Amino acid sequence: MDTPTLNLIYAHASVRRYKRDPVPASVVETLVRAGQRASTSSNMQTYSVVATTNAEKRLALSKIAGGQKHVAQAPLFLTWCADRFKLARACELRGYTQNTDTMENFLVAAVDAAIAAQNAALAAESLGLGICYIGAIRSDPAAIIDLLELPQGVFPITGMTIGYPAQEKRPRPRLPQKSILHWEKYNQNQDEHLLAYDQAMIETGIYKNRQVPIPGKEDETESYGWMEHTARRVSQEIRSELRAVIESQGFGLK
Amino acid sequence: MDTPTLNLIYAHASVRRYKRDPVPASVVETLVRAGQRASTSSNMQTYSVVATTNAEKRLALSKIAGGQKHVAQAPLFLTWCADRFKLARACELRGYTQNTDTMENFLVAAVDAAIAAQNAALAAESLGLGICYIGAIRSDPAAIIDLLELPQGVFPITGMTIGYPAQEKRPRPRLPQKSILHWEKYNQNQDEHLLAYDQAMIETGIYKNRQVPIPGKEDETESYGWMEHTARRVSQEIRSELRAVIESQGFGLK
Repeated sequence: MDTPTLNLIYAHASVRRYKRDPVPASVVETLVRAGQRASTSSNMQTYSVVATTNAEKRLALSKIAGGQKHVAQAPLFLTWCADRFKLARACELRGYTQNTDTMENFLVAAVDAAIAAQNAALAAESLGLGICYIGAIRSDPAAIIDLLELPQGVFPITGMTIGYPAQEKRPRPRLPQKSILHWEKYNQNQDEHLLAYDQAMIETGIYKNRQVPIPGKEDETESYGWMEHTARRVSQEIRSELRAVIESQGFGLK
Repeated sequence: MDTPTLNLIYAHASVRRYKRDPVPASVVETLVRAGQRASTSSNMQTYSVVATTNAEKRLALSKIAGGQKHVAQAPLFLTWCADRFKLARACELRGYTQNTDTMENFLVAAVDAAIAAQNAALAAESLGLGICYIGAIRSDPAAIIDLLELPQGVFPITGMTIGYPAQEKRPRPRLPQKSILHWEKYNQNQDEHLLAYDQAMIETGIYKNRQVPIPGKEDETESYGWMEHTARRVSQEIRSELRAVIESQGFGLK
C-alpha cells in the first residue's frame, strides 16, 4: 500500500537542528488550519495553541524544557494546550456553569490537543518543515503558564519545535507490531518482542556499545539496550508537581 | 499551499455509515504501522491498540458506547490504549520497579496513544476508509477493560470505528482560527469569534432552527446554536467514575 500520506508518515523522524529561516505566519496559519480539521470530541474544540517566534521567549522555553538547545534554535515553537476557557465563556454568555470537576474534562481536552497537534505536525512535514515534540514543557508547567499568560482553564499539554531541517532525518526502529497491535483481546506474552527490539536498538549504535551488568549475574556484562535505558527512565519519579498545577489551572481531576 | 496530505486533512469528516466490506488484516497492519511512526515520548511507545472485528464484540462495544449504531455496524473497531504494561515487563526483566505514581505517567501515555491514533486515522483516510473517534468508550471503561482483557497498566483512551464509507463526508465549520491560534501570549478576547461561530453553526442547519429563550430576557427567543448546545453539555457531570478506573488499572495520578 502506497499513498503520498503513508509515505510522508513513514518518513517521519524528529528534527533537532534547524536552518535560520523563519516560518512565515501564513504557513503557521496553514498548520493550525490543518490541526483544526482533526476530529474533536463533540465538536467542543477544547484546545488551543500558542505560537512563539520571539527569540527571548524561545530561550526562556528552552530553559524550561531542561535546556534543550533546539527549542531556542528553532524559529517557531508551538505550545498545544488543553483549553476549556472558551467553553467557560460560552457558559457565561448562555447562563450556565461549566462542570470541570472530573478527570474526563481534562482528559478529553488533552486528547483534543494531541490529535490537533499531530495533524499540524504532518501538515508541517508535508510542507518540507521538520518538527520535534517537546513534552519537557511539562517539567515546569507553571513557568509556561506564566510566560504565555495562560488563563484559568488552559493547560500546556505538549510543545513542538518547527523549522526547516538542517539535518538528515533518521527514522528509528519501533517495537515489533505484535507488541502494539492486539487482535480481539490483549496479549500479555510480549517478552520475545521486547527482547528483539532491544537487540534492534543496540544494533543502531545509538547506545554506543555501552555495557551493563546482567541482572542476577552481576560479574558479567551485556549491551545496554532499549530495555535498560527505558527501565532506568521509568523507575524514576518525574514531573511530580504536574497534578497540582493542572488543578490550580481549574481542572478538577476528581 | 497545497500538498496531498493537506488536501486529505482538509477533507476529513467523521463517517458514521459504513459498507459491509471488511477491512483486510493487511490494511489494519498498515494503519498501525503508520501509528507507530508517530512521535512517542522518549521512544517509550507507551500505547497499544486492540482491533475488534468480531460482530458480537462490536455489538458489546456499541452498547458500552451508549448504543451508537455505527460502532456495531463498522467492520473494524480500534481501541487506543495508554499502555505501561510493556514498560513494567522491561523493568522486571532488567531488575527495576516502574514508577507509575504520578499524573505525568498517565498523561504521557494518553498523549502517545492519541497521536498514534491520529496517524492511523489519516492513513486510513488516505486508503479510502472513513473513521469516527468514539470517546464514549470512556463512559464505561471497566466494561472495555473486561471485554478486551486489558491487564494492569493498560487503559482505553479512545475508540475508533473504521470502514469503507457509505455516506458523503460533510466537513463541519470550526471555530475561527483567532480563538484557537494565539501569537506569543494567550488572548482572552474571544467573544466576537464565539458569536461568529455560533451563527455559522446555526446556518449549517444542524440544529434545525430550534429556538431557546434569550438569557436574561426569558420571554424572547433566539436560535439554538453551538454555544447553547455546548454550554448544556459541559455544565453536566459526565464519566465521573473515570478516575477510579484509571487508578484501579495501576496509574497513580498523584
